[in-house]
Amino acid sequence: MHRGGKISVQPTVEVPDRAALAMAYTPGVARICSAIADQPELADEYTWTGNTVAVVSDGTAVLGLGDIGPAAAMPVMEGKALLFKRFAGIDAVPVCIACTDTDDVVRTVAALAPSFGGINLEDISAPRCFEIEDRLRALLDIPVFHDDQHGTAIVTLAALRSAARVAGKDFASLRVVVAGAGASGVAVSKILLSAGVTDIAVADSKGLIYRGREGLNPVKAALAEVTNPSGLTGSAESALRDADVFIGLSGSSLPEDVIETMAPDAIAFLLSNPDPEIHPDIARRHAAVVATGRSDFPNQINNSLAFPGVFRGALDVRATEVTESMKLAAADAIAALVGDDATPDYIMPSQFDERVAPVVAAAVASRARADGVARR
Amino acid sequence: MHRGGKISVQPTVEVPDRAALAMAYTPGVARICSAIADQPELADEYTWTGNTVAVVSDGTAVLGLGDIGPAAAMPVMEGKALLFKRFAGIDAVPVCIACTDTDDVVRTVAALAPSFGGINLEDISAPRCFEIEDRLRALLDIPVFHDDQHGTAIVTLAALRSAARVAGKDFASLRVVVAGAGASGVAVSKILLSAGVTDIAVADSKGLIYRGREGLNPVKAALAEVTNPSGLTGSAESALRDADVFIGLSGSSLPEDVIETMAPDAIAFLLSNPDPEIHPDIARRHAAVVATGRSDFPNQINNSLAFPGVFRGALDVRATEVTESMKLAAADAIAALVGDDATPDYIMPSQFDERVAPVVAAAVASRARADGVARR
Repeated sequence: MHRGGKISVQPTVEVPDRAALAMAYTPGVARICSAIADQPELADEYTWTGNTVAVVSDGTAVLGLGDIGPAAAMPVMEGKALLFKRFAGIDAVPVCIACTDTDDVVRTVAALAPSFGGINLEDISAPRCFEIEDRLRALLDIPVFHDDQHGTAIVTLAALRSAARVAGKDFASLRVVVAGAGASGVAVSKILLSAGVTDIAVADSKGLIYRGREGLNPVKAALAEVTNPSGLTGSAESALRDADVFIGLSGSSLPEDVIETMAPDAIAFLLSNPDPEIHPDIARRHAAVVATGRSDFPNQINNSLAFPGVFRGALDVRATEVTESMKLAAADAIAALVGDDATPDYIMPSQFDERVAPVVAAAVASRARADGVARR
Repeated sequence: MHRGGKISVQPTVEVPDRAALAMAYTPGVARICSAIADQPELADEYTWTGNTVAVVSDGTAVLGLGDIGPAAAMPVMEGKALLFKRFAGIDAVPVCIACTDTDDVVRTVAALAPSFGGINLEDISAPRCFEIEDRLRALLDIPVFHDDQHGTAIVTLAALRSAARVAGKDFASLRVVVAGAGASGVAVSKILLSAGVTDIAVADSKGLIYRGREGLNPVKAALAEVTNPSGLTGSAESALRDADVFIGLSGSSLPEDVIETMAPDAIAFLLSNPDPEIHPDIARRHAAVVATGRSDFPNQINNSLAFPGVFRGALDVRATEVTESMKLAAADAIAALVGDDATPDYIMPSQFDERVAPVVAAAVASRARADGVARR
């Protein structure tokens, strides 16, 4: 399946003869260039850029494999480009870059911006990923979206809305423990806060993050300000006693005698890949709803439910960015597809449910207009 | 023809169900990434990079339009990508970059290298283009080829071989005047020297370039050392008296009373686009062979006869560079297709002659092996 790669570039126009060639290329193409030089917004109409996304990685945090470099990251970026086309008709180009210094990554990606309608950052290690995305968002007037953060956040929020409904729990009152304070852990925590959850405790490899803990990087220090309202210290495991929700994003394990201390009708999202924090069948003995990142268990929570529709919607209205409320709208649109049909084994639509990308796109586009970031 | 752009990205594998998705993307793709991390040369086999070329421009010298910027350059780069596929089956990605400082361009393109099997530089202004290409060639172990230089040089050399044959002139003894010392003028002069022509005079907007002329940039100063053996000063027009060959690459005009001072059976390549230096029908009154860059006159000299086959050959053997002798081999392969069939109105094969790219590719690949720059 991977031999020779998984994507290709194809002409969309025929060049059967000299006359066609003279139109598609020199000298005919000069008219198009001149028109865009005079009126830059015509680039949207007369080039492919309005439908393109760069899938950019520096290869520093590829899947669970870590810093394997740009060349070895390419199969993932190609796969992502394949999914962009398959699910949302977007022309995505994998771009694996040979630099890891934050300044260099920002400079390189910013230089590429005229060639694309959006930038999907992928598999860039934390905490560098936060600064890189922030700076690129500030520099560029096209959507910059670090999927490991926001794609994961959107699908996790969508799944949690369904799961809370199934478990009969009030969403805003959920007590949530997030294991992991990397790209996805931070973004999931933030989107849950935006969505109205107030009691979230986040743990990294050293234990719970709390205000005043020594040695926190700036991103974790900021997180400490807005999470862990009870000021819990100690391990994630200790915080799980009576918690409603566990969200595993760190590759750690969750012992059975810990999950059984959670509140009744608990919700366990075992999102570490390829090995969930505890076997889903064991988790299910102690939790009302169990989800994983895997396709071979019920309730797969996978970014591919989010990123195609998010970029489709953003490109459709030529959004200048993906705002927080566009992300919330995407999550709600995914959850709404399940709605009242939700059961313990069905909290998320299938990745092959063809309704997903269009409804996400529509929700994102509509929200972009409402937020004043749509250019058309 | 240009609406929505001229190329698209297409999947080459089907993803009909969860099982296929789990192979194409996570978790299955991790095995491929790990394999490449362990054995980097597998990237050639298990990604698309072995068949890809980045078509990179900073938009500083687009066609005859000048410095119109990266966004307005995109239609040309898309057109080029279209031709790469159409004529050589290569997946080319247009990359228009938002930086023009030489250091920044070099750094940006070098950072992109892991994503591509070759770099086609395009429409970058002189003299920056020379340093940019030289530095990238030194930095990277994939072919870096500035088509405005070397593509033009290859097709011009091919055309001149045929034209000399038609005009009954000995190739090495030709007296040549090149009008223009930008990217193409410099490269054409150099390849003719490599091919054995010894008497070449080059002129820029200030007149003939000669050893010791004040204010020459380093590239022109180097050219002054190896051209203009008679030490002519003055205008290009003065040098044309008794010259065998005029090669126009500067957008200047060639008055009829100047072309008529050339040697009997003169050769006039009127390559400025879209307006040749003199109307080809008028030139034909005084020259045995006339060629232009245009498709609506006989003898079109166009880069699309060269770059698809050059990159096809280089990629086929995973060449680390395009050497001078690979360029000469490409030119000879093109000229050989015309061979003894050459007439005053047929010195170059048609762009739609399907033999061209394969024979150029074969010649380039063979020469790469002989030069020791082939990796397979």
